[in-house]
This record gives sequence, C-alpha cells and structure tokens, in this order.
Amino acid sequence: MLTINFMMSPIMRTTRFFLSTLKEAPADAEIISHQLMIRAGLVKRLAGGIYTWMPLGLRVLRKVEKIVREEMNRAGALEILMPLVQPGELWQESGRWGAYGQELLRFKDRHDRDFVVQPTSEEVVTDVVRNELRSYRQLPIHFYQIQAKFRDERRPRFGVLRGREFLMKDGYSFHADFPDLEREYANMHATYTRIFNRLGLKFRLVKADTGSIGGTGSHEFHVLADSGEDTIAYSDSSGYAANIELAEAMPPIEKKRMPTQEMGRVSTPDKTTCADVCALLDIPVQVSVKTIALIGENQDPSARLSLLLLRGDHSLNEVKVSKLAGLQGFRFATSEEILSAIGCEPGYIGPVGLTENIRVIADRTVAAMSDFICGANLPHCHLKGVNWKRDLPEPALVADIRNVVEGDPSPDGIGTLQLCRGIEVGHIFQLRTKYSEALQCTFVDEAGATRPAEMGCYGIGITRIVGAAIEQRHDSKGIVFPDAIAPFSVAIVPIGFKKNMDVRIAAENLYGSMVAKGIDVVLEDRDERPGVIFADIELIGIPHRIVIGERGLKAGTIEYKGRLDTAPLSLPMEECMDFLLKKLS
Amino acid sequence: MLTINFMMSPIMRTTRFFLSTLKEAPADAEIISHQLMIRAGLVKRLAGGIYTWMPLGLRVLRKVEKIVREEMNRAGALEILMPLVQPGELWQESGRWGAYGQELLRFKDRHDRDFVVQPTSEEVVTDVVRNELRSYRQLPIHFYQIQAKFRDERRPRFGVLRGREFLMKDGYSFHADFPDLEREYANMHATYTRIFNRLGLKFRLVKADTGSIGGTGSHEFHVLADSGEDTIAYSDSSGYAANIELAEAMPPIEKKRMPTQEMGRVSTPDKTTCADVCALLDIPVQVSVKTIALIGENQDPSARLSLLLLRGDHSLNEVKVSKLAGLQGFRFATSEEILSAIGCEPGYIGPVGLTENIRVIADRTVAAMSDFICGANLPHCHLKGVNWKRDLPEPALVADIRNVVEGDPSPDGIGTLQLCRGIEVGHIFQLRTKYSEALQCTFVDEAGATRPAEMGCYGIGITRIVGAAIEQRHDSKGIVFPDAIAPFSVAIVPIGFKKNMDVRIAAENLYGSMVAKGIDVVLEDRDERPGVIFADIELIGIPHRIVIGERGLKAGTIEYKGRLDTAPLSLPMEECMDFLLKKLS
Repeated sequence: MLTINFMMSPIMRTTRFFLSTLKEAPADAEIISHQLMIRAGLVKRLAGGIYTWMPLGLRVLRKVEKIVREEMNRAGALEILMPLVQPGELWQESGRWGAYGQELLRFKDRHDRDFVVQPTSEEVVTDVVRNELRSYRQLPIHFYQIQAKFRDERRPRFGVLRGREFLMKDGYSFHADFPDLEREYANMHATYTRIFNRLGLKFRLVKADTGSIGGTGSHEFHVLADSGEDTIAYSDSSGYAANIELAEAMPPIEKKRMPTQEMGRVSTPDKTTCADVCALLDIPVQVSVKTIALIGENQDPSARLSLLLLRGDHSLNEVKVSKLAGLQGFRFATSEEILSAIGCEPGYIGPVGLTENIRVIADRTVAAMSDFICGANLPHCHLKGVNWKRDLPEPALVADIRNVVEGDPSPDGIGTLQLCRGIEVGHIFQLRTKYSEALQCTFVDEAGATRPAEMGCYGIGITRIVGAAIEQRHDSKGIVFPDAIAPFSVAIVPIGFKKNMDVRIAAENLYGSMVAKGIDVVLEDRDERPGVIFADIELIGIPHRIVIGERGLKAGTIEYKGRLDTAPLSLPMEECMDFLLKKLS
Repeated sequence: MLTINFMMSPIMRTTRFFLSTLKEAPADAEIISHQLMIRAGLVKRLAGGIYTWMPLGLRVLRKVEKIVREEMNRAGALEILMPLVQPGELWQESGRWGAYGQELLRFKDRHDRDFVVQPTSEEVVTDVVRNELRSYRQLPIHFYQIQAKFRDERRPRFGVLRGREFLMKDGYSFHADFPDLEREYANMHATYTRIFNRLGLKFRLVKADTGSIGGTGSHEFHVLADSGEDTIAYSDSSGYAANIELAEAMPPIEKKRMPTQEMGRVSTPDKTTCADVCALLDIPVQVSVKTIALIGENQDPSARLSLLLLRGDHSLNEVKVSKLAGLQGFRFATSEEILSAIGCEPGYIGPVGLTENIRVIADRTVAAMSDFICGANLPHCHLKGVNWKRDLPEPALVADIRNVVEGDPSPDGIGTLQLCRGIEVGHIFQLRTKYSEALQCTFVDEAGATRPAEMGCYGIGITRIVGAAIEQRHDSKGIVFPDAIAPFSVAIVPIGFKKNMDVRIAAENLYGSMVAKGIDVVLEDRDERPGVIFADIELIGIPHRIVIGERGLKAGTIEYKGRLDTAPLSLPMEECMDFLLKKLS
C-alpha cells in the first residue's frame, strides 16, 4: 500500500507549492492566528468570514479531519453526507424555522419553495432515521458527517475562528433509552479526549450551558489560549471545570457577622462606581454592594423592575440571571425607567427604602454581608453601615447571579477555582427527545410501546481547530504547529540546490528515504537566500528542519533544528533518519 | 502505517452498518441507477434532486474521490478548497451574473449584499490567482477542489445523474502562453483517461461543443450506457469520436444527379410527415425533403423567417443551427407565423415559389439531391420531381445542419460512423482568456509586457460517476460494481454465525487476515436466511462473496462466487487468500 501512495504523490517541492508568505498582516486581522494564517498563506479571504483554503492550509485541515474521522470510526459512529441545502419544511416541523434568527441562511428555489443552507443537521438526520426506524433492535445508531456549514454571523471576525462558512464534524446518535444515550455520551467524551490529545493541543473539558439548542447534559472542549473568547473556571485540586457562564459561585463559608456600625449617609459627588466610592472613602471594595436594574419582559408593568445586588468587585452572570423566574429574556433598565421607578439616577441607586413593587434579588455573597455600603437613592450620596433586616428587608430572592472569581471555593468542594481562557472547539449534548418528538422519530420498544428516540449530538469545529491551534502555539517568528497537524512534518533545506550537484543529490536522496518511511516531508528547492527560507519555514510552523550544505556534506553531517530549538544541532548524516523517526514518534 | 489503519477501523459488520435494502423502487425513480441506488440504500432522497449519502453509498463516493485526487496530485495539480458561498460582485465582474439563468442560486446576506452558492468556481479561482500573480515565473499553476456544487435545475431527475446538489472535482489552470495551456490540456487528457481506466468503467473521450462556458478546445468523457442522455458518434475504423451535437455530417460523396422527372403536384391528404407521404406514394423516405421554419431573434421582422431543409430521414442539429449567422438564439416559428409568411399551414410547406424575403438554408445532403419530393405550400399537397435551379433557386446557404446517422462517413476520412449513448462524467476546456481578461488576472511576461493568463478548466462529476457506473454495470439482481469503487470488495458470509462457534471463529479469522492484507471486506453477521443475505450482497454489488458453512468447514473448504459468476466454486480454505488477492490485483 505504501508503494502505491508513494507513486501517487509527486515530489513535494516548495517551488511547486505556490508558497506566498507576507511580511505584514492585513489591517483587519485582529488576532494572532488570523494574522499568521494570512501571512503564512494558509487561507485567502474571499468575503467577510469566507475563506479559500490554499494548498498548505488544506493539508492542515485534512490532517485534522483525518484524526477526527479515524477516532469517530473507531468509536463506532458511521459517516454519512447530508445535503447542504435543506427544505424549510423540516425546519418548520422542528420549530427552528421560527426560533433561529438571521444567522440561518434562507432562500426560495426557482419554484418558490423555502430552503436553508445548513448551519447544523438535526432536522435532516432525524428525518433520515425516522424513515427507517421501526424497532428498538435497530438502535443505537450514530451518524456523523464532516461537511461545510454556513451561519450568517452579524459580525464575522477573528479569521476562521468566527467565520460564516466553516467545516464542522457533526454527529447525531439515537437510542432506545436514556441510559444508552448516557453510555454513548461517555463514549464521545472519551473519543473527543482522544482526538484532542492526538491533535497535540492543550485543552480542557468543561461543563457547559445547553443554550438554545435545548437538551440536558452538555460539555464543551476548549483549546486553551489567552486570547480565547470563553472563560473557564477550574479547580486547582480536582478535575472540576466549567464555562464561567455555568460555574457555580458557592455561598460564603463564613457566617454573616453582626452589625457593628450605624447606617449613615455619605456624600459621594460624581462617584458612580463601587471602585470610585471605596477609593474616596479609603475602604476595600469588598465592603461595597452594586445595584443593577433589570426589566423582565413578561412581568406586570407596574412591578416589572428587579434590582440585582452584587458585591462591588463581582460581575453579573447573565446566563444565570436569565434562568431566574420572570427574568428569561431580561434587559437592562434605561435611565428613564430607573428614574421613574426609584426617583434617582443610576449610579446612586440601592436597595434601602424601596417601594414594595420593586423586587430585590441578592447574590449569595451579598446576602451574607454586613455593614456594607450601597447607593442611597439620592443623587451623589451613598449609605454606609447598611445591614440586612435592621435597615432593609431581607431580599425577595437570594441566588447565584455572579461570575466566579479566582480563589472562590470549587463547587465540588475540592480546592479553589482558577480561571483561564479557551476557544470552544468541541461540544457534546444530550438532546434527549426535543427533535425526535417534534419530528416524530419513534420506534416500538421491547414492551411493544411506541416511544421517541433519545438523541445526542456531538460537534467539532474542524476549521476552528486550525485557528485555535495557532492561538495556542505561536511565537514571534510564526506558527508552532504540533507534529500531528503541521502542513509538513519536516523541511529539507539544501543550501545551493541549483548550483551544487552533490548537495542536490544528497537532498533528493534524503527526501526519497523519508517518503519511503512515510514521513511527510517537503523539499525546499526555491532559489532564495537561506535566511528567507528559514523565516518562511518558521512562519509556516514546520516542526523539524534539516539543512544540507556543502561543508557539512564533506564532513558527512547535516544540521537539525526543531521549531522551538534555539540553536541547530550537527548530526552525522547516517543518524539523521533514526533521530527524526524518534522525534516524530 | 497499515497497523495503525487497522486499529482505527472497527470491524465492518453488516449489523452495524444500518443496512436497509428495499424490494421495490420508489415510483419517481425513472432509470435503473436511480432505482438500484435507492433499493440498495446508497442514498436517501431529501428533496427533489437532493440526496443524503448513506454509509454504504459514501464508501463508493469516497473511493471515486480518492482515485480522482491521487491522479490529480500525480499530474501536478494542487488541491485547495474554495467557498461554497461566493460574492455576487465577482459574478458581475465576469459577466456570468447576467448570463447565468435561474440555475444559479442567488441570495442576499443579512447586510443585503448579493451572494451565490457556487455552481462552479471560475470567478473565485481567478480572483485568488490575480491577487498573487505578478510574473510568468509563477506560472503554470493548476488548482483543483473536490467540493459540493448547487444548480437549481428546473426538473431534477434520474437520481444523482441530474441532481441539484452534487459533488464535483473542478480544476483550473493558468499559463503564460497558449502552448503551455495545450501541454496541460494534454496532461489532463491523459490524467482523465487514467482516472476512468482505474475506475474500471467503459468510457469514450469525445470532442464536445464548448457551450456557454466559452473558450475553444473541449473534450467530454462519457461513461457508456444505453440509457445515456448524450449520443456519441464514433468511427468504426479510427479514434474519432464526438458528441452528436458537434459531429460533422460530411457532404455526400456522390455527385448530384441530373433531373429525370418533371415537377408535379401530388395530393397528400392529411399526410404531414415525410414518412407518411413516402408511404402513401410507396417511395423511399430518402427521396423526400422536410422543411422547418425558424425565427432568428435579431433579424428584420419582415424577413426574419428561415426555412431549413433536411432529408426526410434526417434530424435537425440545433447546436449547429445556432452557430449560423442570424440564427443564434433561434426559435421555431409558430403556425400563425408560417401561415402569414407562406400562406400555408405547416406540414405542407416547401421551398418552391417563395417570396424573396424568406431565406432558404439547405443541409449539405439536400443541396445534392435531385428529383426530390417536398411540401407544395398548398394544403394537403406535395411536389414531386423537384430539382434545384430548374424549379427553385439554389439555396441562400448550404450548411451542415443535421445530426449524423450510422453509416455516414467519418469526418476524419477513415471509416464510417457508429452511434452509441453515453453519460457525461468529465469535461476539459480550453477557456483561454475569457475569465482572465474580464477579471484582469494578468502577469508580466518574459519580455516585460502585461498579459492575461491563458486558462484551462477541468471538471469531473464525482456523484454522477456513481450513477453512471450503475447505469453501465447492473443486471437483474442489482448493481455490478467494479472492484475499484465497490462499497466493499469482499463479503464473508458465515452460515449460522450466531449458532455455530466453529463457523464464527473461522469467519472472524478470515476477516482478520483479509484486513491485514489491506482487503476491503465486510463480515455478514446478520441473523437472516442465506437467501436474503445473498440477495442483498448481489443488490449492493459487492464483487466477491465467500461463504463459510459447517459442512465445508469440516472438509476444509469455503465457497467463492464472483458477482457475475453463475455458480459458486469450492476452494480449499488455505488457498482462499491467494485466490482472492489474484482476483483483486
């Protein structure tokens, strides 16, 4: 088999490869992976969020695809290929036609029928299965595809990290009961872990919010990178990790202390933030409470304002808030609404002396505070020494409404939380029966009863992984690809390829032996100065570089340099292959 | 490498494969490949002309893709991946925005900008290259992709043969001059020939019309099948072959004979076709001439009728006609138009006694006829013994306007023409500078002058090949896939897999050894009667079947049957592997 593959591949030479690197990144490239991908010529921009994958970039993409495909097959999933263009009817049946916003690309065909270009394929796969499924004996089924997706993002950016057209592996499983869904969910959990390990990336598996797609259990896989859009909270002593959207802020361990101060008004002219007020009064910000006014969409108009209280140094977690009764789809109150309800401008509002129709919701931390400082509901004034029950009624609701911070106790009771940033590249969901009920994908169970199938869905952002890998792995010279997904593993650079026949023959021979060993190698035959070639190889992120020069050749040596090594290493020619095979294994 | 691939593949068992064959084909499946693909469960219909490729079908598709990719790489082309969604601006620049009809799927994005879903990618690849191309030193370049395409066919049908969404390999080459384009054209000519040979299909390479895509040289690759939409004319004695749209009908070799009859009117009540008239008069149809009235769109309204004359047994070639001066975009005249111009209903019209403003165009054959019969321009009457010059003026134009028929002399002067039917699966074009001029894809040549690049384009219908292969290769039992693209090469069928442990062990062992040899094998572990399993294997088209039964096992034999063999063959177990490897080589 190897012989055939060898025959099929022409010699990979850089002159043939339409290499086009750039010194400068384009002005619209805001983040490093976007800049480096354009500079290295991996992709070319066609329109906002739409890219052509050039030969070098496509090699990276295909290596990611191959690892994902091998592991999905090994896990027992079956690859299929669903259409990009899908009938609108199916989306109406599932309810997503109405629920999905402008990101869903809709169009009418020449016969005026509604169609969409797929952002995902829950509807189609459920339709395929419902047409075949009769009995529990046919279950479980797990179909996946690796296929282009389109989402009409309002503001595409960050190159391939938030594009409009992208490549995704989306898998969908069908089960006779929930325990079998849980079994497959664990199988995918393990499969994804293997995939990201094979890709050679640092990643973290986190509990996630299930969001609009619906369902119950949900985990995200994040590639760790400082520039990541998501914040992940993890325990320093256990395996606990969660998206900050979901990570629970535990109630304080210390008991609420007894009041020690009288409540009193302080003048705080033009100080509208907790930090400014505390700086003015020379007290720690942890003593202050900030008040945020929200409008819950469906509440009675006369009592629809909610005041949320957070400790001065904490921040609001909107996902948690949106799960509170009456606050689903909330919005922030306008200055006019606050003024009319409380009689005071925002910046000085607080929970003391409110009318009864305003609901006060305190974060767990605030509920345990005493002698705190907060807005006085009077312009340029705050109150200090405020205490629950004595100065104001206990809050209508105490809830976890803040983002965790570093040092918070871990929700699993083991260790304290740390924060890091990540880029979401995988997501596994327990969909349960959301789609199978809507689309009537049912089967007859062992007892003869008709039931909807339990479903799971499992996504991996194939194009996104390339961007995320570069965000995680780069230096001032360029990309630092892991071996598994580098466009080439090894570059052979002959010095004077066009002029020195000995160098040329040695380089071609080494190239041939490496190909025969199955090494993914490129031969640098451009007529450029070594400095230019070395810079390109470093920019592109090829992990291993071998230089063959006239002088070394006479001494029987070549020069090796790993992408992150500070200096090259001289090696006897005959040891070169073993050395490399060891590096690559 | 093999070890790893083996580890990555789970055992291919039919119980795991979601096999779903059907006894009956759906009512809308008009042709055999469509019926068999649905019955074998290779694809499932989602909407008109839109299919999901199921696991078994996708295996076939991937094998086709792999052969195409290997040969394109070997030929020196570079794979890229262009976006499905492309900006309308580029299509406006090339002029295809206006020229392409309703088949082009157009939509506006959320910012109201025009986009299309690609039917092909000439515009995008030319844009990619023009942004990089500076010097002739960068040429030649050949980029290709294997990517989904969408064409909103008015009447999608024939399953994947005329679908709306399909997979295509489209390649585009750029050259400094025409000789280099011709070199690459020959390279692709040879590459496509290798591809279709490797696919194991009978095919014919034919000269083709360049059609609306523009350019000069053009060849089509047709998979031969009686059900093919295209008719191919080929010489019985040379390599000449052409699509009938293009095959030249040579002037008759025999000289025009002198008149021997007087012209006279014959009564032909209700006989409006040449066949009927000749039957009535008991003369051969080759003596008759039929008259077809056309309107050329841009002609002067008072003189815009053209009468085309064909021998009674010949048929009009509309492609040839549309290339005549004044007849580009012609249409057939209505009965009213004919009546008003000639004063006679169609069916009895002819070229004798016309006013001067009607243009008569005679086919080469008709121009050489004497003593012929034609319409008399009087109801229910024809003229016989008609002769050029004596009875009517020589035609305004003599041209090749008919389809060739079997027995015509081959245009290359060697042998006579035969006809066969084919399905177009590949097409190579010399585009020349149509797109590079429109999109200003230029470079500086060796002499320092700025020139547009010479371009070629090269397509292969990946999904279409699967349908075409089945049209060519099937029998009453089902599909007869060639080894190269069968979903599995070999099926092992143990009789009593669930009951007999010896059979089971022997089957699993044989399966393991085959996988180790790189054979693409499936193990039939369904709890079904052998008859059902055999019928499925034949329907799906697996080329080689091995049956392991209890009795044979005791005697140390297995049973082999090739898909087209009439009876199975008993083989000693130990010879089985060598026997199969020889079959597959």
